Amino acid sequence: MPGALLTDLYELNMASSFLRHHMTGQATFSLFVRRLPPERGFLVAAGVEDCLDWLEQFSFEPADLDYLGSLGYDAPTLEAFGELGFTGDVFAVPEGRIVFANEPILEVSAPIAEAQLVETYLLNRVSLQTTLATKAARCVVAAAGRIELVEFGFRRTHGTETGCDVARLSNLVGFSGTSNVEAARRYGLEAKGTMAHSYVEAFANEADAFLAFAGDLPGGTTFLVDTYDTLDGVRHAIEVICKLGIGESSGIRLDSGDLARLAVASRRLLDEAGLEDVRIFVSGGLDEHDLEAFVAEGVPVDAAGVGTRLGVSADAPFLDTAYKLVEYDGRPVAKLSTGKATLPGPKQVMRAPGLEDTIARRQEEVPAGTSALLEPLMLGGRRVASRPPLEVGRALFAGDLAELPRSAARLVDPLAPVARVSRTLAELAKAVREEHRPRS
Amino acid sequence: MPGALLTDLYELNMASSFLRHHMTGQATFSLFVRRLPPERGFLVAAGVEDCLDWLEQFSFEPADLDYLGSLGYDAPTLEAFGELGFTGDVFAVPEGRIVFANEPILEVSAPIAEAQLVETYLLNRVSLQTTLATKAARCVVAAAGRIELVEFGFRRTHGTETGCDVARLSNLVGFSGTSNVEAARRYGLEAKGTMAHSYVEAFANEADAFLAFAGDLPGGTTFLVDTYDTLDGVRHAIEVICKLGIGESSGIRLDSGDLARLAVASRRLLDEAGLEDVRIFVSGGLDEHDLEAFVAEGVPVDAAGVGTRLGVSADAPFLDTAYKLVEYDGRPVAKLSTGKATLPGPKQVMRAPGLEDTIARRQEEVPAGTSALLEPLMLGGRRVASRPPLEVGRALFAGDLAELPRSAARLVDPLAPVARVSRTLAELAKAVREEHRPRS
Repeated sequence: MPGALLTDLYELNMASSFLRHHMTGQATFSLFVRRLPPERGFLVAAGVEDCLDWLEQFSFEPADLDYLGSLGYDAPTLEAFGELGFTGDVFAVPEGRIVFANEPILEVSAPIAEAQLVETYLLNRVSLQTTLATKAARCVVAAAGRIELVEFGFRRTHGTETGCDVARLSNLVGFSGTSNVEAARRYGLEAKGTMAHSYVEAFANEADAFLAFAGDLPGGTTFLVDTYDTLDGVRHAIEVICKLGIGESSGIRLDSGDLARLAVASRRLLDEAGLEDVRIFVSGGLDEHDLEAFVAEGVPVDAAGVGTRLGVSADAPFLDTAYKLVEYDGRPVAKLSTGKATLPGPKQVMRAPGLEDTIARRQEEVPAGTSALLEPLMLGGRRVASRPPLEVGRALFAGDLAELPRSAARLVDPLAPVARVSRTLAELAKAVREEHRPRS
Repeated sequence: MPGALLTDLYELNMASSFLRHHMTGQATFSLFVRRLPPERGFLVAAGVEDCLDWLEQFSFEPADLDYLGSLGYDAPTLEAFGELGFTGDVFAVPEGRIVFANEPILEVSAPIAEAQLVETYLLNRVSLQTTLATKAARCVVAAAGRIELVEFGFRRTHGTETGCDVARLSNLVGFSGTSNVEAARRYGLEAKGTMAHSYVEAFANEADAFLAFAGDLPGGTTFLVDTYDTLDGVRHAIEVICKLGIGESSGIRLDSGDLARLAVASRRLLDEAGLEDVRIFVSGGLDEHDLEAFVAEGVPVDAAGVGTRLGVSADAPFLDTAYKLVEYDGRPVAKLSTGKATLPGPKQVMRAPGLEDTIARRQEEVPAGTSALLEPLMLGGRRVASRPPLEVGRALFAGDLAELPRSAARLVDPLAPVARVSRTLAELAKAVREEHRPRS
């Protein structure tokens, strides 16, 4: 696990200044999304578990301190950094839950130097993973339980570590497997795969290639049929499937051209050959809009590989996340910058049925019939429980999705619910604003 | 360095099948971008150096083989995998050079199982890094040498490893530094940073915060002035700068609101106080279009932190890369799929002045007055030279940029040059197509 230098230089400058000025008061920072991208009606909270793992082992190693010394930090600062660990508390929304704008996904309370130093890493993990889980969730919504989804993004994700994240997060919201072998091993996912055009091309002809491949995978396989002419490819697959009698465990994959038209034509050829059980798998630049169209038009597609556009969340590759100081040494604080004003104090989100949320002060009572989204996941620098299995997050996501208004779930022009602000919190915000009313 | 399981399952299935069928012939795969995103008039090749590092150490570790055994690979296959390394050659375009659609960025020649297994990793590295270097290059073009650029993306890049890549690649094309401390250490970059709003908020008032911070950084610093009211913030910064006499080494940072208007107003306040040397630094959701507007309108901005939109290449977060078999066992091959047809055989790109490129067969003679883009960077599984310093790539980029047509460099509706195909290569492509003319 990587170290304490996965941070921005200014975090170190601020932390060293806090330490030098003996500012050791408890700070609470709130991590939230300011506003949703226009293409998003909801978000799926994720990334929190990696944050907890990292916080538990947070420390500066001797080599880190040597490097910081070379940048000019003085001996007392290096000594103080060397003694730091993360000793704070983390309240957070468990992975898989649906959240909206301004709702804290994670809140850190710790001595201010510690809480400041971990900003960059926490923002990075939660921003990325919430982005990816949300994109995958849109695919699941679009597939409507009618198309099996396999994650195929590894070759064009932003880095190989992120490729593993995409595999995990797509599984969190309901994908059945991933092409990514390392992710399958690491997270206990099902690895899935077919063949590439290069395999077909390495043989003298397509039928030979199919026969060889099927012979190597006696449990049945999926034939990529579009290397030369797609419907000829389907015919070659049919020959091999019939010859080997593997109709109950085989499929064909369409990866180019007009997939809907080719799926219909392929289904007809397969059915005419008595191969009703052979599945049709599609891939090739797909996203949630393609999946929705397949379902709406009744295209005979059994499964889809969703790759690049999921793997980079192509239409909304980032979220407008913020990690803001909301309380220092018992004093609620807020930023008033134009368009970036924040709500002061530690918070809680109260959720009523239908995902009707209210952002409240942390200590407010949870009204009957509502549940509190943020849970104490780390106390005194230690996790309160080990990382939950993916099934737990899957159940949370499924539960929230069932309650999500249809207007928020739709893919185009979604209407994202807006959390109310409790009266108590609104009063606090007003008091803090008035303290800093500008001169001019 | 991570292992051989950073791959898609189908690569393993194909490789095992090749080995089982004793298909050990030499294969050449070509990695290229099929077409540029509409917002891109050129690409900056990158990622090749990481590929070479990884290929040199490519092997299956015992734990990898154990996992593959659990997936059902048989003993002879596992034994064969265990003996594999990468023994091939790599011809590639050195990092920093400008390239266009269909031009090979990298070509691998190796026994087919090896060349197939490394596909996913090579695609991932080259796709991502070319995407990021290109986005950063657009910022450099827009800043036109008038605004110093600092990379600020770490908190919202897709993962922390990618954050380090962004820092390196922005430096490759001319950024002066990065906020990312780990990347600065790893790649010898200059780490830069100012302060966050939380620092200001942790003090009773803004002027106290500025005074404390400046006292800790006697070499001068940059004051973030927009926590409460921006122009009041500038006045507080002026007080502290004058009090400490640090006008020659200080700056102010604007991070919200109408940056152009605030920069003009801030410049006026600073100049009126005799602080002509105090620099104005801007940040906050900037991209190349903002930079271009600042330059065009003569906004008094000295430096800019470019973050999220660079770090995720927000307007074009992926490239349509392909890794295609072009020759097997001496036989040129090509894929004919609709919209995805490829050019057969190992290739070279001949570059004439003005970046007028011709894609040719590898063995064609390089005409006088043109240079060959692809260089043999790895032979027999070994690098021919160690990783070049970033200065080398910077010089290559600067040289190509000076030759790039203005219509390709412009930010909006760029016109990407299209490489010609040599007559010899065109004839080969035609011959391969005719071999596989469809029945129907």
